[in-house]
This record gives sequence, C-alpha cells and structure tokens, in this order.
Amino acid sequence: MAAAPKYLTGDGAGIKEFIDKFDTFLFDCDGKRVVFVTNNSTKSRQDYVKKLQKLGIPCEAEDVFGSSYSAAIYINRILKLPAGKNKVFAIGESGIETELASEGIPFIGGTDPNFRRDITPADFEGMADGSLLDPEVGVVLCGLDFHINYLKLALGFHYVQRGAIFLATNADSTLPMHHAFFLGAGSIMIPVANAVGEQPTILGKPSQAMMDAVEGKFQLDRAKTCMVGDRLNTDIKFGIEGKLGGTLHVLTGVNQKADWDREDAIAVPAYYADKLSDLLQSA
Amino acid sequence: MAAAPKYLTGDGAGIKEFIDKFDTFLFDCDGKRVVFVTNNSTKSRQDYVKKLQKLGIPCEAEDVFGSSYSAAIYINRILKLPAGKNKVFAIGESGIETELASEGIPFIGGTDPNFRRDITPADFEGMADGSLLDPEVGVVLCGLDFHINYLKLALGFHYVQRGAIFLATNADSTLPMHHAFFLGAGSIMIPVANAVGEQPTILGKPSQAMMDAVEGKFQLDRAKTCMVGDRLNTDIKFGIEGKLGGTLHVLTGVNQKADWDREDAIAVPAYYADKLSDLLQSA
Repeated sequence: MAAAPKYLTGDGAGIKEFIDKFDTFLFDCDGKRVVFVTNNSTKSRQDYVKKLQKLGIPCEAEDVFGSSYSAAIYINRILKLPAGKNKVFAIGESGIETELASEGIPFIGGTDPNFRRDITPADFEGMADGSLLDPEVGVVLCGLDFHINYLKLALGFHYVQRGAIFLATNADSTLPMHHAFFLGAGSIMIPVANAVGEQPTILGKPSQAMMDAVEGKFQLDRAKTCMVGDRLNTDIKFGIEGKLGGTLHVLTGVNQKADWDREDAIAVPAYYADKLSDLLQSA
Repeated sequence: MAAAPKYLTGDGAGIKEFIDKFDTFLFDCDGKRVVFVTNNSTKSRQDYVKKLQKLGIPCEAEDVFGSSYSAAIYINRILKLPAGKNKVFAIGESGIETELASEGIPFIGGTDPNFRRDITPADFEGMADGSLLDPEVGVVLCGLDFHINYLKLALGFHYVQRGAIFLATNADSTLPMHHAFFLGAGSIMIPVANAVGEQPTILGKPSQAMMDAVEGKFQLDRAKTCMVGDRLNTDIKFGIEGKLGGTLHVLTGVNQKADWDREDAIAVPAYYADKLSDLLQSA
C-alpha cells in the first residue's frame, strides 16, 4: 500500500515546501507553469480558455490540453494513416471537430445534422451491404455526445467491425454537472465496444498516451511536475502512472478521503487539501 | 466438457428418435406443442403472430413468449410493487408498451415523442434537482430502442440511481438483420449500467426468470421439452440451464460448430442440424 497522503490545509510550512518542490502543475493556477488537463471532449482548447476566463482565471489556448486535442494529436502524429484511409468518423460534439480540424484531419459525423436523426430502413440496408459506409474512414473516435442516437452508434459499430481503429477521448463513466452526475464519454462509447467485442484505445486521463503528448508539447521535467485533481481513477492515477514528482488531491470533487483509505484504493495521492484555494492563501 | 452434440441432418432414424422424445418444442413448428420464445423486445406477441403468419407459419398470440411479455409478467406478478411506486420508465419500442399495458402496468417513456428529442439545459437541471423525475417510477425497463438518445439514458440513470429497480428485456449485444449485425438490447442498456455501476436483472433468454414464466404459463414437462435455436449464449444456454430434456442447435444463425468445439464453449447443444427444415423433411 502507498504511503498515506500528506494533508496540506492549514499547514503553512508544508504548503511552502510542496509548492517549492515543483516547477509545473498540470492543473492549478499559482503563477508557476500551469497546464490545464481536461477529459471533457465536448470543448475545444479555445472553448476552455473562454470558460476559465469567465471564472477569472487568465490563460491561453496553449495552456490547455483536452482529450479531444490529445486524440487529434494521436491520430495525426502517431497513427499517421495514409491519405484515402485517414478519415475519422466522429461521435461527439464540436470540441472534437475543432481539434481534428486544428490538426488537418478529415472527418465526418460530429455535429452534422445528417447524423442527428432517426435511423431509417434504408440506413439499415446501406450499412448491411456497405453502400452507406465511407471507404475512406480509418478511425472511429468517440467522445461525449449529447446527441447520441442509434444511427451514429450503428455506423461506429460497422466501421470498427470492418477494420477501423477504435479510439475514445476518455473513459469517464459519469460527468459531474449541477452537483449531480450524468453519463460521461465512457458511457457513450460502450454500446459500440459491447457490440463489437473490442475496447477502444483511450486518449484522455489516465492514459499515458495523453501524458506522453503533454510532455512532448511542454518539455516537462516529470520529477518537478505535480498533477492536481479531484478524481482518483483519472487525475491521481494519471500522475502516479506518469511517474510525476507528485500528486495533489483536492476534496472538492468526486472522491473523498475514504476512497484512498481502503485496501483496494484505485490510487493514493501524495498530498491532499480541502480545496485548491487553501494553498493560494497560505503560500 | 459436455458430450458432443448428435448431428441430425440426413439421419432419418435419428430425427424420428429425436422428435419422439419430446412433447414440446420451445421454438419449432412440427405439429406438437410449440412455443415461440423470442428475445426481440421491439415486438409484442401480436406483432409476432403477424410476422410468423406472413412467413406461412400459423400461430396465435398464446403461442408466443417474448422478452417484453416476460418483463411485464415479472413486474406485475413477481415484483408486485405498491400503487404509487409501480410506474415503469421504459426505454424501448412499442412492443414493450403493448406488453406492459396487457398486464395493466402504468408506464412513461417508450415511444412518447416527449422523450424522443434532444436534451435541454432545463432537463439537466430538472434531473439534478429531481423536479423532472416522476416520483411514482419504481422500475426502469430497458429493451431495444432504435430511438435511443441522451435524454432517455440520463433519465434511466437518474431513476436507477435514486432506487428504481433496473430491468432489461434481454442482454443480446447484437441484433441480426439483413445478413449483418446491428446493436441489440444489451448494447442499449449498457450506458445506464456503466454509469450507475449496476447490472440490470435480465428477463429474456438465457435468464431462468423467463423459463419459470414459460413453464408457469404452459405447464410444461421440462424433461419432455426441447429448446431449439441458433445462438449458444441465449437459446442453448437457456435450455441447458433450464434442465430441459434436450437442446437442438440449427446452423442457420450466429453460431457454428467451431463455437462449441472449443474448450471454453459457452454451451454445447445435445443435437444439431444444418437447418430446421431438415427435420421436417425426414420425420
């Protein structure tokens, strides 16, 4: 079992020592190098900048690393599919489209109204005989889609079944909103995974594909980087598996102290605080 | 490992012996007692009669036992929820509605156009604070729904999370159609199961809840009953786990001989034939 995390709230000396230890915080806002790492695939980096600025947090698109951007980088720079076989069938909202476009990747699906409709008998036949399928599609990328329907799921299933590479922006089963939970991207891609009998490659936290991409882009020193977050199975696991210098859990989100005090804890942070601003006040 | 199944095609004496052995065939059409047992939840029993009659197979609603009917019987006769807490939130097509109505069970959802639409910000808020949720809903029943959307999945998730009993008509991951596959009911309910972290009770094959309901209705002698089907993980498993006198696999569907010849076979039938009509011709 990992060592118990150090509690920072109210511990001025401990907080100073913690902050001095790292150069880079992957989610934080304390004046050092900060990268906002998010699994929310519905927003592009530019969307996030607007959201953070509204919250009074100054940042630029270059400071944001989202799961849709991570997926676009993976497709363009790692998969490097040949032209004529590099089109993406996207299940998701505009964030995915913006990031695919930013890397110059051709795609269909997404927010296109032609895919936001009921399935028809002609669709069933066209998928069965293949005539409805775009032969250039080589990737199915699935993120959070508030307009999910049978047509999109069936198309995703047929493309993967015929050999397309199956990717997901992230695997979060739920999405926190209005102090409640809704279905996350992991619950949108799972019908395709279940029908085809194959799990997608995950590009968001805690996938190390995302850590590699973040490190490559920002030239981080992992030993002097700390991951800050409120979810053990994504944020803290992401930092631990990425062998970062530290992980800081804040108790304002999904997981509480009891979640890492148990024998079968998913991940145990190195530090924790009641809320992020506890550090700002004392440092 | 189970004994190898006996091959019947072309074996006249073997076929006669097989047919003489059973009083009831759970899916067949040979003149003895026949019950059509189907996992397709989109159709009511009456819909099935029309379909079978079109194929030249005479039958009546009383000869058909579908997963939607099985679910309605389970809700009404086994669960017996009190009035005011017995409403069903249905994810599915008209077959579910017809069968719930046949047992006098109140329901919402289903094919109601109010649920066949995009989710709105007001929906998110109304689910988060509970104001959108019907307090009389005590069951979420999920079948195959060609009009699945985020709104229905989120409602199903919130009802189950708040204590509703989670049922599924069946768990088939795929649905054969036009000599291809599409998503089955098991791939429609899985987003809710994944988000809530709970598996539904399954009412269709191979669930023995369905076998018990079939036996209760038709007063079968299990030892003299044979299950006939083309899918090992539903049909054949259903017959074996139900301790029926026999199981007959026909090679016209999903599974072939190689599927039960392997060490980790899901189920091994007692008999098999190339197609059902092989038996009709020789008997």
